[in-house]
Amino acid sequence: MNKFFSTKKDAPLKIITLSGTENVTKNMTIYEYGDDILVVDCGIGFPDSEMLGVDVVIPDMTYLVENSHKIKGLVLTHGHEDHIGAVPYFLRNFPDVPIYAGKLVQGFLKEKLNEKQYKNLNPKFHLLDPAGGDLTAGVYKLAVFRVNHSVPESFGIAITTPQGRVLHMADYKVDWTPVLDKPIDLAKISALGEEGVLCLLSDTLGVNTRGYTQSERTLQATFDDFFESSDTRQILVTTISTNISRMYQIITSAVRFGRKVVLSGRSIEQSVRVARNLGYLPFADDVFVKEEDSQKYLQKDLVYIIAGCYGQEGSSLDRLSKSEHRNISLEDNALVIFSADPNPPGVLEDVERVMASLTLLGAEVIYSEIQGDLHVSGHGTRGDLAMIASIVHPKYFIPIGGTITKMRSYTNMVTDLGFDRTSVFELKEGDFVEFFNGEGERAGHLDVNQVFIDGSEVQGLSPVVIKDRGQLSDDGVFVIVIPISRETNTVIGKVDVITRGFVHVKTSKSLIGRSRDVVNKALDTTQGKVDDWGALKNRISKQVEKFLYKQTRRQPLIIVHAVYI
Amino acid sequence: MNKFFSTKKDAPLKIITLSGTENVTKNMTIYEYGDDILVVDCGIGFPDSEMLGVDVVIPDMTYLVENSHKIKGLVLTHGHEDHIGAVPYFLRNFPDVPIYAGKLVQGFLKEKLNEKQYKNLNPKFHLLDPAGGDLTAGVYKLAVFRVNHSVPESFGIAITTPQGRVLHMADYKVDWTPVLDKPIDLAKISALGEEGVLCLLSDTLGVNTRGYTQSERTLQATFDDFFESSDTRQILVTTISTNISRMYQIITSAVRFGRKVVLSGRSIEQSVRVARNLGYLPFADDVFVKEEDSQKYLQKDLVYIIAGCYGQEGSSLDRLSKSEHRNISLEDNALVIFSADPNPPGVLEDVERVMASLTLLGAEVIYSEIQGDLHVSGHGTRGDLAMIASIVHPKYFIPIGGTITKMRSYTNMVTDLGFDRTSVFELKEGDFVEFFNGEGERAGHLDVNQVFIDGSEVQGLSPVVIKDRGQLSDDGVFVIVIPISRETNTVIGKVDVITRGFVHVKTSKSLIGRSRDVVNKALDTTQGKVDDWGALKNRISKQVEKFLYKQTRRQPLIIVHAVYI
Repeated sequence: MNKFFSTKKDAPLKIITLSGTENVTKNMTIYEYGDDILVVDCGIGFPDSEMLGVDVVIPDMTYLVENSHKIKGLVLTHGHEDHIGAVPYFLRNFPDVPIYAGKLVQGFLKEKLNEKQYKNLNPKFHLLDPAGGDLTAGVYKLAVFRVNHSVPESFGIAITTPQGRVLHMADYKVDWTPVLDKPIDLAKISALGEEGVLCLLSDTLGVNTRGYTQSERTLQATFDDFFESSDTRQILVTTISTNISRMYQIITSAVRFGRKVVLSGRSIEQSVRVARNLGYLPFADDVFVKEEDSQKYLQKDLVYIIAGCYGQEGSSLDRLSKSEHRNISLEDNALVIFSADPNPPGVLEDVERVMASLTLLGAEVIYSEIQGDLHVSGHGTRGDLAMIASIVHPKYFIPIGGTITKMRSYTNMVTDLGFDRTSVFELKEGDFVEFFNGEGERAGHLDVNQVFIDGSEVQGLSPVVIKDRGQLSDDGVFVIVIPISRETNTVIGKVDVITRGFVHVKTSKSLIGRSRDVVNKALDTTQGKVDDWGALKNRISKQVEKFLYKQTRRQPLIIVHAVYI
Repeated sequence: MNKFFSTKKDAPLKIITLSGTENVTKNMTIYEYGDDILVVDCGIGFPDSEMLGVDVVIPDMTYLVENSHKIKGLVLTHGHEDHIGAVPYFLRNFPDVPIYAGKLVQGFLKEKLNEKQYKNLNPKFHLLDPAGGDLTAGVYKLAVFRVNHSVPESFGIAITTPQGRVLHMADYKVDWTPVLDKPIDLAKISALGEEGVLCLLSDTLGVNTRGYTQSERTLQATFDDFFESSDTRQILVTTISTNISRMYQIITSAVRFGRKVVLSGRSIEQSVRVARNLGYLPFADDVFVKEEDSQKYLQKDLVYIIAGCYGQEGSSLDRLSKSEHRNISLEDNALVIFSADPNPPGVLEDVERVMASLTLLGAEVIYSEIQGDLHVSGHGTRGDLAMIASIVHPKYFIPIGGTITKMRSYTNMVTDLGFDRTSVFELKEGDFVEFFNGEGERAGHLDVNQVFIDGSEVQGLSPVVIKDRGQLSDDGVFVIVIPISRETNTVIGKVDVITRGFVHVKTSKSLIGRSRDVVNKALDTTQGKVDDWGALKNRISKQVEKFLYKQTRRQPLIIVHAVYI
């Protein structure tokens, strides 16, 4: 091996893809060498349709808690929720661990930690700066370099470890004409590649799309065209709140065509505030009009940048689509432009609902299916990913940030590039590899659980609770209450039945009556004496379940409860 | 107007888009003239994510029930579930109404009505046959003509009414080289157009895709290529069960390359049985191998046509992906081809889960994102739709079978074709128009409800039940049981609390204890006497709700129950 694979190799370097390789989001990778752990990214995920009632999902930090004394730092690659959203939960466990982040990420986090429930969290930030020198976190040397993505200041990280150098490249694309950022630092990446890279962790999300990702810059003409051809109309553009460069383009077009800008939605306001403080949106104050003042203007003199591009319930655009917005009213023939990922998982139904309502209110809705140049992805397509893999030409690859199928496509891609199939570690969440003396091998698997955040519970939600919710949501609940004398151990009153979410109670009196008969029949077998309540309870539960299923083909959650008097 | 607009016009023709214009599926349109109602299509829909526990959704037939004496017939355009799936529910209400359907649709329905729960339903079928003469149903004259779609024998219907002729063209595309069918009968459609059409009801689903839909025939080469290049591998192809022509192509390739065919999954077996009985799949019996015999063969000598292309839980492919299939085992390096709509609403998550599992088991999974020629849509794209609109050049249009946004796109399309924007009636579900003397106008709206089918309940499910399930699924149930003496009206024992799906009970003992305190405190205010249980119950419920929300930010469904002893 070359000089960058150090000779001090008494321990292997372990890389654990703790989270983020199977479902795109809630990214977290752990690097461990001896007593030094470095964590990269700490994002939230969104519940799938089976995680009922869950607000968000976060990485399972059990392993980190068990090894908390080892953690030397948390590195954040860029300011998207699926990479930084779980930082408050991380800080609750590890309040003193230094956080390495760019200034925009620091701004976003400070804004979030301003909220009341986080007031005790004061993270120790270290600035990641591609123009600055290397940083040190335990045994790790960190050098950052620019990549392009749909939020400015997205970084790749070169992590030099005693076992060699690893490049951690989470979400990225190659953009020669980005809007606010500089282009990806291919010179630095090439130099690192020439010096020798043990392992490349690479984004995979766009791997199935041929060619190169388009430049952000191409969208300026789209906005100009809309503003030019719709000069008498109310215009609203919706996009994700962290897409600062998209906002820069919208505002640029607005200024060019003499419109002022209304920011609508808390996430967009917050994110623009942070970006403006850092000099990212260098527009005069009088370009902006407060949402509550927007009705004082002719609508043709405004453009709204409005939150809710994924149809989120309660978002500004959602409220507008229901004619429930306090400060904005939709004009007839308004132009509503969706400038966002056309098909993110799980939101199609909500987006369609909002678009349908806006259409029925008289708006013209413009979206990717009917016009092609409304959005460019923040993720590199196959061309971008192949370019990086070729320039870095590492000894090993670990595909991250995608799904199992994307991972496999990435493997096929690097195989096509001439790398050996065995040089790719396809790691599920919790899998880890160890590198020793320049050689990597699969070394094991950590049990990782889904950690659900629901309401104020930050310690996660038990799978039993989720399972019960599944049954409750399918067929409701059926409660049987049996009064029993504490003294004589006999049933001393009428069996009660209460049910919700199962059948329409008023029209199901006979069913409920007959189910009570089933319970009474089971009680009869005890000849009045309840000696083994556990066994009796199970028997009643089974017989009622059987009866209800036969009658209704439904299986409500059955609760049999004894009231001891 | 011309000769086909009859002079006998004492009543208007009403067209009610009862269902199917907002959410693609559960199609049903009602034609009403005087005392004569004709119903076209009777499909099921699939529950959206808020319709918890619901199996399927069907059109709201209340209006038909109220006017059942008027119904002269049900016409079925083609054999897809979203057009014929609710026929059993229709028959329960209207067992004697004649059903007009092609022989394949009749075959599918007879197969379904063979199931035990439908044994009393014996529909009166009338054959729809494009080669046959006109049929009569009440005042309506029906002439059918061939269209192309992803199931053979898909028909357009020319409905001649006393107010003029309407063309009902549900799902269709233009295919000059279909696989089993003949091409769409443009000559007939042109002739009808020349004679004069009052109103065209047209499919809209593909309106946002430019150009013409590809021919089914193009897929033969795809299958041939796979069979040729993978001659040593196990091959499985998954597609929807009614796509008989797709199966014809797969079996043709199989025969060509010396493989036998295993049909796997009940829906596929049923549909192939019906199709073979009608002569649609003219292959010798020995081309087929029973699923249970499949392991006796070398796997390279077989191809599986397997159900589950949408990742349906419990489908044959799903069981295979979980290594739970009784009769089939996946070979290492098996080729699994998804030949189906790449992105139908709501199934992405399930498809990804199945594909990921198959990948991890060692299969190579081929799907539309990585290879383009695996599927062609059954719906006409903009070119097809514009062609039909132009040839028919009706006085009015009603877009059907799509969504609000597709409807609007269809309106924009016909406006581009030179028709007046006011010639299109964009009708929500329940809206109706009336035609009189050649003029059409919006005439009103029927209240239509979501009718849910859940388990064996065919009369629909109450919205209250669904709402309760929503709360249960988000935050579970919290039951409070209070024993009260029937004689003295006083509380005579300990308050019990039972909860499921809310918090992890073992680790929440203190929370549950304190919630019991809240109940006891509320009971204290009654000084032992329960005079107004209703009011007390509400007070307890509200106070517990408030307490639990403050502690957990969750709102379980609270049941307060008095046990009278």
